[in-house]
Amino acid sequence: MLTPPGLTAARFQQALERLRRVVGNDWVFTSDADLDTYRDAYSPFWGEAQERRASAAVAPLDVDQVQAVVRIANEFKLPIYPISTGKNLGYGGSAPNLSGSVIVDLKRMNRILEVDATRGFALVEPGVSYFDLYNHLQQRKIKLWIDCPEPGWGSVMGNALDRGVGYTGQAYRDHFGAHCGMEVVLPSGELMRTGMGALPGAKTWQDYRYGFGPYVDGLFSQGNFGIVTKMGIHLMPEPESMVAGVVEAAQYHDIEPLVAVLNRLENSGLCDGMPQISSPALGGLGDPPNPEITRVIGTPGGPKPADLARIAQGKPFWHVRVLSYGPKEVAQAKWAYAKREFRKAVPDCRIVEEVAYDIPLTPEKEEALSPYRLELDRKVNFGIPNLGIFAMGARSPAFPKPSDGHMWFSAVVPRSGAGVMEAQNLFCRAIAEAGVYIGFNAPIPLGYSPHLFLMIFPVFLSKSDPVMNRKGRELLMHLIDLGAKSGYGEYRAAPALQDFIMDRYSFNKHAYRTFCEQLKDAVDPNGILAAGRYGIWPKQLRKARRS
Amino acid sequence: MLTPPGLTAARFQQALERLRRVVGNDWVFTSDADLDTYRDAYSPFWGEAQERRASAAVAPLDVDQVQAVVRIANEFKLPIYPISTGKNLGYGGSAPNLSGSVIVDLKRMNRILEVDATRGFALVEPGVSYFDLYNHLQQRKIKLWIDCPEPGWGSVMGNALDRGVGYTGQAYRDHFGAHCGMEVVLPSGELMRTGMGALPGAKTWQDYRYGFGPYVDGLFSQGNFGIVTKMGIHLMPEPESMVAGVVEAAQYHDIEPLVAVLNRLENSGLCDGMPQISSPALGGLGDPPNPEITRVIGTPGGPKPADLARIAQGKPFWHVRVLSYGPKEVAQAKWAYAKREFRKAVPDCRIVEEVAYDIPLTPEKEEALSPYRLELDRKVNFGIPNLGIFAMGARSPAFPKPSDGHMWFSAVVPRSGAGVMEAQNLFCRAIAEAGVYIGFNAPIPLGYSPHLFLMIFPVFLSKSDPVMNRKGRELLMHLIDLGAKSGYGEYRAAPALQDFIMDRYSFNKHAYRTFCEQLKDAVDPNGILAAGRYGIWPKQLRKARRS
Repeated sequence: MLTPPGLTAARFQQALERLRRVVGNDWVFTSDADLDTYRDAYSPFWGEAQERRASAAVAPLDVDQVQAVVRIANEFKLPIYPISTGKNLGYGGSAPNLSGSVIVDLKRMNRILEVDATRGFALVEPGVSYFDLYNHLQQRKIKLWIDCPEPGWGSVMGNALDRGVGYTGQAYRDHFGAHCGMEVVLPSGELMRTGMGALPGAKTWQDYRYGFGPYVDGLFSQGNFGIVTKMGIHLMPEPESMVAGVVEAAQYHDIEPLVAVLNRLENSGLCDGMPQISSPALGGLGDPPNPEITRVIGTPGGPKPADLARIAQGKPFWHVRVLSYGPKEVAQAKWAYAKREFRKAVPDCRIVEEVAYDIPLTPEKEEALSPYRLELDRKVNFGIPNLGIFAMGARSPAFPKPSDGHMWFSAVVPRSGAGVMEAQNLFCRAIAEAGVYIGFNAPIPLGYSPHLFLMIFPVFLSKSDPVMNRKGRELLMHLIDLGAKSGYGEYRAAPALQDFIMDRYSFNKHAYRTFCEQLKDAVDPNGILAAGRYGIWPKQLRKARRS
Repeated sequence: MLTPPGLTAARFQQALERLRRVVGNDWVFTSDADLDTYRDAYSPFWGEAQERRASAAVAPLDVDQVQAVVRIANEFKLPIYPISTGKNLGYGGSAPNLSGSVIVDLKRMNRILEVDATRGFALVEPGVSYFDLYNHLQQRKIKLWIDCPEPGWGSVMGNALDRGVGYTGQAYRDHFGAHCGMEVVLPSGELMRTGMGALPGAKTWQDYRYGFGPYVDGLFSQGNFGIVTKMGIHLMPEPESMVAGVVEAAQYHDIEPLVAVLNRLENSGLCDGMPQISSPALGGLGDPPNPEITRVIGTPGGPKPADLARIAQGKPFWHVRVLSYGPKEVAQAKWAYAKREFRKAVPDCRIVEEVAYDIPLTPEKEEALSPYRLELDRKVNFGIPNLGIFAMGARSPAFPKPSDGHMWFSAVVPRSGAGVMEAQNLFCRAIAEAGVYIGFNAPIPLGYSPHLFLMIFPVFLSKSDPVMNRKGRELLMHLIDLGAKSGYGEYRAAPALQDFIMDRYSFNKHAYRTFCEQLKDAVDPNGILAAGRYGIWPKQLRKARRS
């Protein structure tokens, strides 16, 4: 049995006993079978010594129990690691940064405490999944949409705190940006409310997020400064219709005018949704791998025109998907304008697909929606949570076998065509040299939220192939390092990579990490809470990490 | 001559001498004439012992000098108080929370370091005003708008950090929400960059605001955790047209359906701008005062129908101004839909004014724009900075004489008609009892940013009438206390009121303030930086404040 670092087995048993007295015997987990559920199913160190594993798990029922758990953790200097619900696959799952930590599993705290249809918000606990919130709204016929990621089993709160995104209206897709008000159990065990919630009996906790004085909520996103037990989230009114279409452009360098138009549309509120870009010529997730394409895009100094023509084989280089919601006249006018602007910027571009839906959808239309990426009619574009994304890996002949895991590489690249081509060139060269297939022949920019492009792709892992896992880790670390040297940084990562990445966010001798760690020591002097999360370690463990 | 608390006159002179060596003799100010410019021209304690005044001011030229100033402040335990540029009238001006502090005036750092037309952002220093940024864009014919408050002489950065708002596109009106990336001189003197800027040579500092790990930027808004020396801000593409109109509804209780429609429009991205509400029946800023109206709206249990009919004198209760930008077809479709929805919700409502503009405006049309509040064609609706707001006080017979100052009361109230009526009832009763005129007969909700309603009004002050000032302070404190007991809190306030307000944000024995002060002590152990700002005091001064 794994014990937490710094605790003897006997002392650990005492701590567990105290936890049992708080939550009941049934809600402290120590058996291998139970703890297996907290392993990272996609761990890049699966079965190896470096795999990060929990020593136990505790599932409190309410805020009082969370506070009691935190106080016991302080008393025993027991490292704890809170999780909400869902899987976080590819970003570390439920496993802690510090092996031997006790998972604080908040899945039982799954109440939807309030929904206000007029003011457009919900107040939720950590265990509320997208499915839960969706069902709640549907059953009560509340005309508000959720904005869900793929897949839908995740926690509304957990996704926002990890800075996930969704696919509907622009003001809602950045989930941390759409949250409003938090209740937090601090590392001391004290309960704090942020924003207007700091006012007892506040009537506007979910109306206004900043409150009075410093705005502290950001410390609890990708952070380890507290356990969030309630969070408000703004919800979008159900629109009356949706229209969407696919703009096709033939040439590689068309990405420059395409992105310029896309930015102007998105920054003007003239399109909604996640503007998905794909490339028939370069190929996408699920297409047969073609290393030649990777080599050409990675050509030092940029791909040559003749090479581009050869790899394209007559296929167009770009598809850009644009989506609009609203009353029919508005949504149609936005899409008509978008088409006009794309044609002005890329005169020979074509509209290769168009769809239009009245909302609410008829049951037949809803039934016919697609669960797949890149389809205009996929469910998440209508705020419908689902697990369709998991059909991806199973159905494609392109993935290596056995493919039972991956880690995401997700670098922020500039929101411009030139920036995209420069980043593609850099990453393709490195990927071609490594000879590892990443599910794409070339990384494609994803419009994750307004102003933001991510180059995000999986590096494949396997539970039964440590050599594959080592190669995957090495490629990831190489790409991260190379990206950092060229000015690209990651937006999110699995614990296995967090220190490596944070090492690169080193402006002025790591002033940012040092600042965070000063704050951390001040509010968590025993360093009990999620030590090491996103590279922020408590003082007791800092030296070991840096060595 | 005022000396900073805890420093002898001789030691203070030594510190000033050291500051002079950093910035040059010309940029350390100690004469009464110079220091008068840093007094709060609208101080509620003007000329009284409690007026908060600076002991000196220092104006660094660049980041190196800011760092040197901060290091000297640490060495001498010299309290410093940074300001950007502009006046912040009604919210405390340039005067420090702690009397005797040395102002760090950043007006000389006024460079616009980068503007990217395609990606839609600017990177600015603290001294860049809205006029500066506007002129920069105009001169270079860059098709991006600024989003400016009234008046336009303020700092783009300072306004964002104080959580000010503007009047154009929805994604830009919350200025703190529209910022992206900061450079900060910490209280230690160390330089930190946040977001993607923590990565040396980052290429996406102004594309993505959160970066990797905890998001710390909120600590520097309404905070005292560092001196921000660079800040990115997202800018809206110049729209092709603007349409706007005024919806009139006759009955007091119409506010309920009006707000429901307004929320749905705004939360769906179907209107832009600040949705301004006014009331012909209740009267507005500049109308002759009518205490009877205040009494009726403040009737315990809510105003009676007969009383409402009497005070209205046939005038309608509500005007709601709705504005849309976009290509002509889109803007017109949005406005047409808005009219339809208002008519559905309030069948006898009327559209009493409509305007439509092609953008860019012709010079003649631009010349003819109005500087005044509540006009559909006012300059800020076109992102044009101006000082027209200052014509308000001068032109109205309604303001008490001498009226040469005011303090803002600005409470967050729920975004619903019921919430508005409840808050009006509470505040009107108190105002009627106090017998003090606040420029309105009844506070009107202002759609400050999406989801947010503020009840914001001036309490008048005078440089020559300490009795008037005392009454004003007493009324404000009474309203703040009363509001807090009913669940309403302020969004912003002058230093003279910050402690009083923060005392009321007391959920769980002041857990929020305690948390902030723990953070403060950790990063500013000498307590040199903006002590007391928004009620956050360093440990050395905490006891005195609480006594």
